[in-house]
Amino acid sequence: MPLLRNRLCGLAHCALPLIGAPMLGYSDVSLARAVASTGAIGSVPCSGMAPGQLCTLVQDNVEHRLCYNFFCHRPPPASMARPSSSWVGHLAKYYAEEGIANPADAVQKRFAALRPTHFTEEHLEALLAVQAGLKGRPPLLLSFHFGLPPDALWERLRAVAGPAFCVSCSATTVEEAVYLHQRHVDIVVCQGAEAGGHRGLFLPGSRVEEQLGTFALVPQVRAALGAGACLVAAGGIVDAATARAAVELGADGVQVGTSFLRSAEAKTSLVHRAALRDARESGALTTSITNILSGRPARGLRNRLMAELGSMRADGPTYPFGPAYLLDLRQRAEASGRGDYSQLWAGQNLRGCTEGPAADKAKAIAAAFANL
Amino acid sequence: MPLLRNRLCGLAHCALPLIGAPMLGYSDVSLARAVASTGAIGSVPCSGMAPGQLCTLVQDNVEHRLCYNFFCHRPPPASMARPSSSWVGHLAKYYAEEGIANPADAVQKRFAALRPTHFTEEHLEALLAVQAGLKGRPPLLLSFHFGLPPDALWERLRAVAGPAFCVSCSATTVEEAVYLHQRHVDIVVCQGAEAGGHRGLFLPGSRVEEQLGTFALVPQVRAALGAGACLVAAGGIVDAATARAAVELGADGVQVGTSFLRSAEAKTSLVHRAALRDARESGALTTSITNILSGRPARGLRNRLMAELGSMRADGPTYPFGPAYLLDLRQRAEASGRGDYSQLWAGQNLRGCTEGPAADKAKAIAAAFANL
Repeated sequence: MPLLRNRLCGLAHCALPLIGAPMLGYSDVSLARAVASTGAIGSVPCSGMAPGQLCTLVQDNVEHRLCYNFFCHRPPPASMARPSSSWVGHLAKYYAEEGIANPADAVQKRFAALRPTHFTEEHLEALLAVQAGLKGRPPLLLSFHFGLPPDALWERLRAVAGPAFCVSCSATTVEEAVYLHQRHVDIVVCQGAEAGGHRGLFLPGSRVEEQLGTFALVPQVRAALGAGACLVAAGGIVDAATARAAVELGADGVQVGTSFLRSAEAKTSLVHRAALRDARESGALTTSITNILSGRPARGLRNRLMAELGSMRADGPTYPFGPAYLLDLRQRAEASGRGDYSQLWAGQNLRGCTEGPAADKAKAIAAAFANL
Repeated sequence: MPLLRNRLCGLAHCALPLIGAPMLGYSDVSLARAVASTGAIGSVPCSGMAPGQLCTLVQDNVEHRLCYNFFCHRPPPASMARPSSSWVGHLAKYYAEEGIANPADAVQKRFAALRPTHFTEEHLEALLAVQAGLKGRPPLLLSFHFGLPPDALWERLRAVAGPAFCVSCSATTVEEAVYLHQRHVDIVVCQGAEAGGHRGLFLPGSRVEEQLGTFALVPQVRAALGAGACLVAAGGIVDAATARAAVELGADGVQVGTSFLRSAEAKTSLVHRAALRDARESGALTTSITNILSGRPARGLRNRLMAELGSMRADGPTYPFGPAYLLDLRQRAEASGRGDYSQLWAGQNLRGCTEGPAADKAKAIAAAFANL
C-alpha cells in the first residue's frame, strides 16, 4: 500500500508517518525520544509545565523530532475550585475503608495547590522565543487536545504557524474535524472511540454516548475534509496490519498510545502495568469511558470505583479536580498493589500492549509503511 | 489483497464474501434476493415467523443463497408480560400530546397479542423437514443473534450442522466469540460497536458501555480464535475501502446493513428514509445505542424520545415488549412525518446509506474482493 512520500512526513518533517501518543503521567521525554529515534514522532505531554521548563525541554531536544502536547480545556471559574461535598460524600465509604480522616480538608488543600493544566499565553511566548533561535530548522511540532486555544491565542499562533509551527489537534466527531480544518489545523488526529485515555471531545454538541469508532470516524472525516487534508488515525492501532487498515480507511498516518504503556521507557506505574498485563493475558478487555476519575471522559480499564459508582456520572467531579479527591485513596491502594482508584487508562485493543523497547514497537507498526 | 479462494465462500457456498445483514422490519426476502443475485449472501429476518411460513420461504428460495436469521433471546417469564406502570408513566406526557387516551389499556392489548420472536423447537423441525428434501444441495444457511438457542436445541441442530446447515452467530466481545467458537459455530460475525440495530450481546458479563469498535474487535477475535476460524466483520463497512480495511483487521468477509436501508428493495419507512437522508447530508451523525425503544440495546439515529428520556435507562422496557408501549405514538407521529418514537436504526458510518439498487451497492463493496 504505497503512500506518496507521505503527506504527514512532509508536513511534520519525519521519516515515518507514526506518532507516539502523548500520555500525561505515563510518558515523558524518554518515551518520546525512543519513539523518535526510529524516524517517527515522539510526543511529550507538556500540560502543567512551567514556561521556563518548556523552553529548556524544547532546546534540549532540537535534534529529535518531538511533538509538544498541550490540553486546551477552558479552566473552570475560581468559584468552582471548591471540593464538592456531595462527591466527597459518594467517596466517604472509600475514605473510611482506607483510613483517611478529614478527607474534605485534604481535598481542599490539593485544590489550593493545583497548577493550571491548560495552554496559556506564556506557553506561546516560550515557544516563540525558542523558535526564533531555530533558524533553518523544520517547524516545531505542537499538538492540542480538548480543542484549540482561545481564539486570540490561536490566531497569533496560526499567524506564524506555517514555517514556524506544525500543529495537530484531536477530533472525535466529523463536526470537530471540520471545525479544526476550517481553522487551518495542519494535522487532524481522528480519535476513534477505541482510544485509551482522555477523549478529545470539545464541541458543545459532542456527546460521550455518540463517540465514533475508528472504523466509522476516519473514512467520514476523510470524506468531509477532502483528499487534501492530513489525517492521523488513533484508536486500536497496534501492529502493521491495523496500521494498514487505518490507511485503507483514509488515514495518512497513525497515532499509537496503549501499545507503549508497558514499554521500558514509559512512566506507567507498577499497578497500571500489572492491570494491563492481566487484562491482556486474560482476554478480559473491560475498558470503559469514565468521567469519575479525572472529571472528563477517558477510556481505561474498569477499576473498583467505576464498577461500584458507575463509569459515567452527571454528578462526577469537575475537570481537572477529579484526581484531588482520589490521590490519598490511590496512594494507599497502590501501596498494597490495588488499582481501585487509579486511572488505568487503556485503549480497547490491548493485544499490542506488551513489554519491550518502545523503538521496537514503533518499527513493527511502521513496517506497514515500508513501501513509502 | 488476495484471499485464498475464500473460506467464507467455501463454508457458505457463495461467490462473494459479503452478507447482507438481516434487519427485522426493514428487510425481507426482496432485499435478500437482490443481494444474493450478486453472488453474495442475502439474509431474511425470520424472527416471529410461523414454522409453516418458514418452510414455504425456504422452499421458494432454494435457488437463491439466502441466510435465515433468528433471534435467540430467552423470552421473559409470563409474569413479566404486564405493562410497567412506571414506564407508562414516563411516557404519559407523549400519550397526552398525541391524544392517546387510556394508553395502559392499549399497551396491555398489544402485550396480549404479541407472538414469540425467538427461535424454537418448531422452527428447527420446519428447517429439518425442508432440508431433508434438499439432497445434494449446499447446506442451509442459518444465523443467530442474541446468542445461540438453548443447549438441547443447539446440540440437536449442531449434530446435523456440518452437511445440512452452516450456522453463524454474532459476537460483540472477545469472550462471546470464544463462546461461539467453542460451540462449533461455523461463522462468527464480529459486530463492532459501529453497527446499526440491535447489539447481539448475550453473555451476562457483556456490558453496553464496554462494546468494542470494529477496529478493536476483529483483530482481537482473530487472535483469540486463531487462523482457522471464519470471521465476518460487521459495523462501518460501506464500500470497497472499508471492506479491505476489515480484511486487514483479520476478517474473512463483511456484513453490511445500514448501506442497504435506503435501497429500493428495503422495507424502510418513509420517516426512517428521510431521517437517514438528512443525517447523511447534514453530516450530523448522531446515532447512539438505546434500550428504550425495544427493550434491548440497539444503535439508531437519535430521536426525540432518546433526547428527552436518555438513550440507555435501567428502568426501560423489557425486550421484546418495548414497541408495544410506542406503537400508537409512533403511528401518530409518523403520520405527520415525525420519527419522535420510531426505531431509526442506523450504524455510525452513514456515508454509504444512499438510494439505489441493493445489488449495485453489494457489487461496489464486493469489489474489494476482486482478486479472489
